Amino acid sequence: MDDLLPGMLHLVRDGGETLTRQLTDQLRGLITKGRLAPGQRLPSSRELAQSLGLSRNTASFAIEQLAAEGYVTLSAGRRPVVAEGLSLDSRKSSPRSSRGGGAQIRVSAWASSLQRSIWPPIHKERPRPFQPGLADEREFPHDEWSRCLRRAARNAPLRRDRPINHPPLQEALLRHLVVHRGIKAVANQILFVPTAQAGLTLVANALLEPGDHAWVESPGYGGANVAFQAAGAIVSGIPLDSQGMAISSHKETPRLIFVTPSHQYPTGRLMPIGRRLELLRFAETAGACIIEDDYDGEFHYEARPVAALQGLAPSPRVFYLGTFSKATYADIRIGYVVVPEALIDIFELAQRQMGILTSITIQDALAEFIGAGAYLGHIRRMTRLYRGRRDRMLQALATETGNRLAVETPAGGMQLRPAKPSTWFSARANRQVNPAPIATSITE
Amino acid sequence: MDDLLPGMLHLVRDGGETLTRQLTDQLRGLITKGRLAPGQRLPSSRELAQSLGLSRNTASFAIEQLAAEGYVTLSAGRRPVVAEGLSLDSRKSSPRSSRGGGAQIRVSAWASSLQRSIWPPIHKERPRPFQPGLADEREFPHDEWSRCLRRAARNAPLRRDRPINHPPLQEALLRHLVVHRGIKAVANQILFVPTAQAGLTLVANALLEPGDHAWVESPGYGGANVAFQAAGAIVSGIPLDSQGMAISSHKETPRLIFVTPSHQYPTGRLMPIGRRLELLRFAETAGACIIEDDYDGEFHYEARPVAALQGLAPSPRVFYLGTFSKATYADIRIGYVVVPEALIDIFELAQRQMGILTSITIQDALAEFIGAGAYLGHIRRMTRLYRGRRDRMLQALATETGNRLAVETPAGGMQLRPAKPSTWFSARANRQVNPAPIATSITE
Repeated sequence: MDDLLPGMLHLVRDGGETLTRQLTDQLRGLITKGRLAPGQRLPSSRELAQSLGLSRNTASFAIEQLAAEGYVTLSAGRRPVVAEGLSLDSRKSSPRSSRGGGAQIRVSAWASSLQRSIWPPIHKERPRPFQPGLADEREFPHDEWSRCLRRAARNAPLRRDRPINHPPLQEALLRHLVVHRGIKAVANQILFVPTAQAGLTLVANALLEPGDHAWVESPGYGGANVAFQAAGAIVSGIPLDSQGMAISSHKETPRLIFVTPSHQYPTGRLMPIGRRLELLRFAETAGACIIEDDYDGEFHYEARPVAALQGLAPSPRVFYLGTFSKATYADIRIGYVVVPEALIDIFELAQRQMGILTSITIQDALAEFIGAGAYLGHIRRMTRLYRGRRDRMLQALATETGNRLAVETPAGGMQLRPAKPSTWFSARANRQVNPAPIATSITE
Repeated sequence: MDDLLPGMLHLVRDGGETLTRQLTDQLRGLITKGRLAPGQRLPSSRELAQSLGLSRNTASFAIEQLAAEGYVTLSAGRRPVVAEGLSLDSRKSSPRSSRGGGAQIRVSAWASSLQRSIWPPIHKERPRPFQPGLADEREFPHDEWSRCLRRAARNAPLRRDRPINHPPLQEALLRHLVVHRGIKAVANQILFVPTAQAGLTLVANALLEPGDHAWVESPGYGGANVAFQAAGAIVSGIPLDSQGMAISSHKETPRLIFVTPSHQYPTGRLMPIGRRLELLRFAETAGACIIEDDYDGEFHYEARPVAALQGLAPSPRVFYLGTFSKATYADIRIGYVVVPEALIDIFELAQRQMGILTSITIQDALAEFIGAGAYLGHIRRMTRLYRGRRDRMLQALATETGNRLAVETPAGGMQLRPAKPSTWFSARANRQVNPAPIATSITE
């Protein structure tokens, strides 16, 4: 054996690896593959060093490392022994042979449903010139933003406290939302999440029990359906009439209602004040909460933006959901939820337990970007740009399609819709799933 | 009325707001407060302009905006009418009076349990000189990192494809994990999540059904308990023996097992190869999956780091969980999960539906930081620094406490533990909750 072992080892001097590492790795490999049998005695580190022409330290270090890892057993004054039961070959099926055979791993019912899910819609075909809700990132002031990021990264070591939602960004965003969206809140009601979708996941988990009813608009945003379904809710698609979600048309009392009142997704319509108040009163009576998704509330082309539902009444039942990805660039991956004041503590704990946090570096950079006026300036410039593109698109459609395809003139956002709902798609009550929205982008 | 209305309006010229905005806001306020009654006729915009000394455009714009929002009704040739049913005062309880009364909002059972939860542990008292697992951020090369961030932000408009997990970071991290942690994987098995905790949430939701059994180490990391409980699992704390989780001591078959084999949290111990193989075989027989949390696997002070369990056998049952927050800085908020190859598609869909994504800007900057060698260089420097601090701390404890408090010399990581387990805390099987880990930091 003392002679055998050196013959099984092939150490390369002046190679990329240290001799200690080579010796440790090769001995471990011989044990793992069963070529050194369990219970077999190895040479002492002195003998090993001698027969391999290594320093005693190198051999000792390798043996001690293998002992620490449990491959060999050491006892005082005796030679090292290969530990028992270490061969992987005793396992019946080699995992190598089951490559791709992870199908044998049982996943949850939710996970196994994902590949049949309607959301996110999969657009495999190319070319696909239109994609809804995507900002034109070429226009974003990347240089100014990158300076904000750089400063935020340099300031990182100066920060002592570690709140998960960065107060300077809460304050800067609050000022923006109060002035431009009519939000009524205090700064720490604003929680930052990686995406608006994560915001939906957070609210759904914190409010819904399995079997609860949740309402979404039909047609509407599929991401809300899947978030509520994942929390175990029974999701009903409530049809739209000319004012938006037709509340009276449904009997089951919901726990949670998802609406896009400022710019309905995907139709682009505005929910007028009468329906907004009706919705608020209904929610109060039903004990339901409302998620108001103001997904592209920054872009309004005609009148001044309509204030958010959240600020209409300082109702403790409205969760206001927004994202920076439409007004900056998609890859920034940061959204926000304005939660009712009484629920701040619970929601921050929920954020921590689910791990739904975002980089403080990004949050800090955004606080500066907003505070310096760059955010509002960019929104204003993009509003002009998108308005012009909208108008050129409308004109081109009119020229090319004549009266075969009439589209409504959207007052805001990034979509166009056909004027005749029949060319759109039918909305049915009580659908558990929504079709993927048909929408075109004016960003490219 | 034609005379009354001007008396109710107070427009300020040369104020901060445009006259149009003041007029719109004040009219809306009068309607909302019920001072203009539903059905009441307003002056025409011509009359309004005249009596207020405004331009006709200003008055028209305000009336049209209010009509778009649904506050007034317009019909051709007639004066505008205040819409019906718009007063908020008809609501029984003013939400203002229920400030903080959001307690009336019913939250889910999970959300209402959060304030009694054991994790995250709350440390309200100050001073608290020790905090486990926190990197010493003062030593991080913030300048180099901020240059990477700046470059990543500037490159954003050049990116065309939009995968949620950035391939250059997958490749850079894979090379690091293969060489330094012995991981066996292809690059797109690596998913990026905001925190390791979000990784636990993701895996728990994708694998566990309500009522499934999940095992955690006792004592162990409380974040695993709460993530598995949130997914509805029955969580058992399995006591540790000298080798780590004592598998044989428990009867219920688990679906998911959470371990920290390279550096047990919080004891700092290494799980030797024999127990690792036993665990892998047990999982195979039980049809269970393993989450290996290698939370501070970067820092090893004595021997070369022990390779990860994940790479020991290329088992399709091991999920390898890591974070950048220990080896860079806590606020970076990015972690990763190496998932089995067969489950990549399902897990990417799960990431999207839950919205558990991270900024591509951060991912791109990290790819460069790792690729340029800065990440490994920083780890090596910090390893030397932390080793020195560990040694000084051990010496100081020996000097100050003598044999009243003997501590083990940790081979890696950021914690110290008492040598006598009795001075630690007792581990009991089947505990649904773990006590908050007692651990000290060597970072400050």
